[in-house]
Amino acid sequence: MSDVFSHPWLGGLFGDEEIAALWAPEAQLAHMLAFEAAWSRALGVAGIVDRERAEAVARAIERFEPDIAELRRGTWQDGVPVPALVAQLKAALGSEGVHAGATSQDLIDTALAVTLMHTFEVLRGRLEALAAALDKLDAGQGSFTLMGRTRMQAATPMTVGDRIAAWAGPLPDHIARIDALTPRIARLQLGGASGNRAGWGDHPDRLIRAMEAAFSLPAGDKAWHAMRDGVGEAASVLSLITGTLGKIGQDVALMAQQGLDEVRLAGGGGSSAMPHKQNPILAELLVTLARFNAVQVGGMHQALVHEQERSGAAWALEWMILPQMALATGRALSAGVELIGSVERIGAP
Amino acid sequence: MSDVFSHPWLGGLFGDEEIAALWAPEAQLAHMLAFEAAWSRALGVAGIVDRERAEAVARAIERFEPDIAELRRGTWQDGVPVPALVAQLKAALGSEGVHAGATSQDLIDTALAVTLMHTFEVLRGRLEALAAALDKLDAGQGSFTLMGRTRMQAATPMTVGDRIAAWAGPLPDHIARIDALTPRIARLQLGGASGNRAGWGDHPDRLIRAMEAAFSLPAGDKAWHAMRDGVGEAASVLSLITGTLGKIGQDVALMAQQGLDEVRLAGGGGSSAMPHKQNPILAELLVTLARFNAVQVGGMHQALVHEQERSGAAWALEWMILPQMALATGRALSAGVELIGSVERIGAP
Amino acid sequence: MSDVFSHPWLGGLFGDEEIAALWAPEAQLAHMLAFEAAWSRALGVAGIVDRERAEAVARAIERFEPDIAELRRGTWQDGVPVPALVAQLKAALGSEGVHAGATSQDLIDTALAVTLMHTFEVLRGRLEALAAALDKLDAGQGSFTLMGRTRMQAATPMTVGDRIAAWAGPLPDHIARIDALTPRIARLQLGGASGNRAGWGDHPDRLIRAMEAAFSLPAGDKAWHAMRDGVGEAASVLSLITGTLGKIGQDVALMAQQGLDEVRLAGGGGSSAMPHKQNPILAELLVTLARFNAVQVGGMHQALVHEQERSGAAWALEWMILPQMALATGRALSAGVELIGSVERIGAP
Amino acid sequence: MSDVFSHPWLGGLFGDEEIAALWAPEAQLAHMLAFEAAWSRALGVAGIVDRERAEAVARAIERFEPDIAELRRGTWQDGVPVPALVAQLKAALGSEGVHAGATSQDLIDTALAVTLMHTFEVLRGRLEALAAALDKLDAGQGSFTLMGRTRMQAATPMTVGDRIAAWAGPLPDHIARIDALTPRIARLQLGGASGNRAGWGDHPDRLIRAMEAAFSLPAGDKAWHAMRDGVGEAASVLSLITGTLGKIGQDVALMAQQGLDEVRLAGGGGSSAMPHKQNPILAELLVTLARFNAVQVGGMHQALVHEQERSGAAWALEWMILPQMALATGRALSAGVELIGSVERIGAP
Repeated sequence: MSDVFSHPWLGGLFGDEEIAALWAPEAQLAHMLAFEAAWSRALGVAGIVDRERAEAVARAIERFEPDIAELRRGTWQDGVPVPALVAQLKAALGSEGVHAGATSQDLIDTALAVTLMHTFEVLRGRLEALAAALDKLDAGQGSFTLMGRTRMQAATPMTVGDRIAAWAGPLPDHIARIDALTPRIARLQLGGASGNRAGWGDHPDRLIRAMEAAFSLPAGDKAWHAMRDGVGEAASVLSLITGTLGKIGQDVALMAQQGLDEVRLAGGGGSSAMPHKQNPILAELLVTLARFNAVQVGGMHQALVHEQERSGAAWALEWMILPQMALATGRALSAGVELIGSVERIGAP
Repeated sequence: MSDVFSHPWLGGLFGDEEIAALWAPEAQLAHMLAFEAAWSRALGVAGIVDRERAEAVARAIERFEPDIAELRRGTWQDGVPVPALVAQLKAALGSEGVHAGATSQDLIDTALAVTLMHTFEVLRGRLEALAAALDKLDAGQGSFTLMGRTRMQAATPMTVGDRIAAWAGPLPDHIARIDALTPRIARLQLGGASGNRAGWGDHPDRLIRAMEAAFSLPAGDKAWHAMRDGVGEAASVLSLITGTLGKIGQDVALMAQQGLDEVRLAGGGGSSAMPHKQNPILAELLVTLARFNAVQVGGMHQALVHEQERSGAAWALEWMILPQMALATGRALSAGVELIGSVERIGAP
Repeated sequence: MSDVFSHPWLGGLFGDEEIAALWAPEAQLAHMLAFEAAWSRALGVAGIVDRERAEAVARAIERFEPDIAELRRGTWQDGVPVPALVAQLKAALGSEGVHAGATSQDLIDTALAVTLMHTFEVLRGRLEALAAALDKLDAGQGSFTLMGRTRMQAATPMTVGDRIAAWAGPLPDHIARIDALTPRIARLQLGGASGNRAGWGDHPDRLIRAMEAAFSLPAGDKAWHAMRDGVGEAASVLSLITGTLGKIGQDVALMAQQGLDEVRLAGGGGSSAMPHKQNPILAELLVTLARFNAVQVGGMHQALVHEQERSGAAWALEWMILPQMALATGRALSAGVELIGSVERIGAP
Repeated sequence: MSDVFSHPWLGGLFGDEEIAALWAPEAQLAHMLAFEAAWSRALGVAGIVDRERAEAVARAIERFEPDIAELRRGTWQDGVPVPALVAQLKAALGSEGVHAGATSQDLIDTALAVTLMHTFEVLRGRLEALAAALDKLDAGQGSFTLMGRTRMQAATPMTVGDRIAAWAGPLPDHIARIDALTPRIARLQLGGASGNRAGWGDHPDRLIRAMEAAFSLPAGDKAWHAMRDGVGEAASVLSLITGTLGKIGQDVALMAQQGLDEVRLAGGGGSSAMPHKQNPILAELLVTLARFNAVQVGGMHQALVHEQERSGAAWALEWMILPQMALATGRALSAGVELIGSVERIGAP
């Protein structure tokens, strides 16, 4: 039960297949191999390696199936899988034109950049779907009356639409945050050993341009090896999104209390002791995921203290935290859409 | 020793007078009274109260000096100071045209919005100052050599400028974050009891426009009583900034180690046991402040789960955390500028 | 890449097979089935169900192989797997003597209690192994000289033994913490629907005694459904342990810096760009795991706000966090033992 | 508004005079001067300084009134106030017999140990008072009926006593935690420059015994300069306590909802917009304080990674966080007692 997202049965509640596929080890490995293949070709373009050799190596890398057990052993030894991966490539293909001038972080962080970009594309679409679901709910029942509640006490009567407006209001801002963030994270990681793009021959620009073309991503003026603010911002945006959903979930759970009965949901979970009970499972899940991400975001900010040219400690902390934040956010959005769609009645007509 | 920022001697290290003045109780009270005065005038503009009466009330509010002990007692009783403040105003000025249709959160959050806006203006200026200090350092010693270090081990030689680039790189992005954030937080809080702007007479727009004019701030389409994503984003940006500074501080503290001696700083703290020691106090302070904010940002994200129309619990959590994050960020930036300015030699000529 | 512990290659660095086995879904399911079997027998002992029937049901439950896909679907629907599990049991065995009077939390938390107890047994043994490894290092090289360092600066010369004493000192206290904690967490969860042990027939004590005998665990005076301080304390102790190891790791990483060279380690990780490099992978790992747990412990403390008789939201937050804290602690201890064992030379003879 | 505890009006809600007095700068300074005086006397006892001189110095230190502005300046320069304090002492009294062999951390951490010990004595008493208040409530209304609620939904009827049992149950465990913790934190900090008690003359034991006698506290086998697990455990226990109170507060706030009306409280806060409202201010405060401490405890665990013989960065992080955790816990307990005492009716007779 180490990870609820991929857990055989808890995954039924927490899992998010679409986001999970983006962060899956196979996907990460594919990105890393794509990097190595593109890099080999770029070495050819830059005149560092013979073009024909470069192309041959690149094609072989694209078909390469690494020995995973050896990657595991290598990660134990080196803290990253890349040295073992590169050793496998070189053993199979020869050294020339393989990985020359690149470093572990270039592969792993480029894979991260691509993954984050795709993740935010998915989340952006789900934010729009949630906004649409809330619009629809508002169109149908927004004019119903609802007691406004402050400090958990009845305040003054208002409409369901007033409540929905507070749920939907942040969504366009979240989309704007994603749009502003994307160019800051959708960047190739290209630095080499100490991150300063040294030792790349006479035409390093050709290397960089070739990599940019291969990934359709900019490389920026400098590697972001030790500049993790983009990654920290990504985590922050994830948690801001789940925070909004946590507020929705908390509200729905409170509205669903018997005696208040301000919302009626289709479905709802049962209890092993009381099969008749209708528990607002998805509403509670949204609260859980919001509090989870609110905890994790602090860890990603701790990882901003990334010493020198590469901090093994801070970097690995990101690996432990960020993928689960992405999964939690994905699931919160899908659960939010599901929850809003399950509202049969809200407020009083 | 509850608060290092205002502590009689720890304040010498942690304190930031300029930011502290923005968040000082007197400043907050001034904003709240400004709100009440503007609101009274706006009630006149909206035709809810006689204009002359409104103006007279507004002027009296502007000169009003509340009984602070009574505000304290009122906060104990009501959880917020506003009911006691309003009671004092009404006792002195009569009820008509005082606070009618407004609520505690309108005052306190408007004061927060103004304070955040001013805080980020100051921080923005300091980010520019830090960028300038780093530029200057780079101009002077950027070409010196420095051993690149990854995983705390010597990697490949590079230049001081390579290291500085990683320090300075995030600064323009932080400024862009502030600029994107500002319109999301520089918003009047105008909602009334349940936050839905109800009971504001026949011309609520006139009320709103008058308030916007008085504060030169937009009020948005809806009160943000229960939409705290802007505040959570503000906290995130504060911590992203201190994260960048924490990285600088960690690097400098590592460079200053005897045996490595990659940096020489003017000043440097002494020890009570070893007066000859030169401790990199400011560098360590940057690490401390980064880790502090990285912890606190998680609390601000917990506060996003803000139930119903107003959560007394989540709102008060913001009060406990956000001001200190602002102070920590302010101090980190001033200490960063000071630290960079104190570099006498970095790397090897 | 959602979970580094079970990840195909990152698991080589982060994974801990022994602890993972304790928290594995199969182990949890086995505990839950053991609970149901014991409960059925206890219903017989208490005279609520015919003894023969009870025994027959219990035996069938012990052999029962649930449909995992259906548990997954049930968790999606109900937020917990137990209603679906019980439905499967009843469909196969009939209702009588199955789960009557028990509730989801009784199963899941009893499984947790058993798992935590076993986890701390393992960790306790590893703390002793680490203490022994440090003793051995101290015996061999403790008299060597080492420069004491405060604020990352050379202070006064001392011995390696002085440094080791600060590493080893907390270990007996951690063991004392585990010993004090164990009776607070090694408790059956027995409460029924609202946690008050209602509806358990005329001899509820017989039920309780039978369950205590079956698990060799006390049930306490009351179910701890909504009293999560024991679980929160467990998380705290886990993070205190990793904190001590993080300090060791940080020290070793600093000692391993070229130019200081205060420690020489066997092994050490390579780099894909610089195969000659010797990176202190395990030392950095200890820092990562310490910071990870320091983040997570805050989430477990958030989960202490467990409303009413059962908080779906706070409970599920524990599921997301606690297993990974246990894994991180297990791995930190094994890595710590490994790291100390790899010290070839420390300080100066 | 940097610190709610000492804030002119927020302090009315958050402040705790008794705990604040323990952590006040003046109290800390008094402990530091008491240390210096005792140390001077101990230097006489150990034969390092002439006894008469030692006694004269000690008496002068006890009467010494430091220049606080200079302590502030010194803290800015040195990161700690002690070098400036010692310089003042030496300027006034001469160097002989002043601070010789001691270090900043000895003073500041001994002051911390004394303060924590006193804090937990107060908290222990309040835990007993809360237990008594709950007993009294249980005696009066424990037999009343209350709907058990799981997942925020009505489950099965139970008694008020069942709910109270979950509130009161953890209190004896918290007291046990305090009792187990106290000997781990109530320890003199005695280490000298690098924490290894070096350079203390021929009879260091006499020094240590004299200090132990002066403070009635053991010094342990070694200084705990770099072993912060006791401090981290103290923070954990503080947060476990506020977690229990947060659960009580959350329950009461939920019970107080109109429509449920399961509790009636005397007092209750008003609203500036709706003076008739009765807000459960103290109940919400308990939730806020629990979530605050749950955030902060993570910061104290980050500070466990305390590198080498003294980490300026990690140590200062404790100063930023721990005092406020103590204040939050003190206030939570007093508010909890107050809240329980204000219950006029709970459940249904």
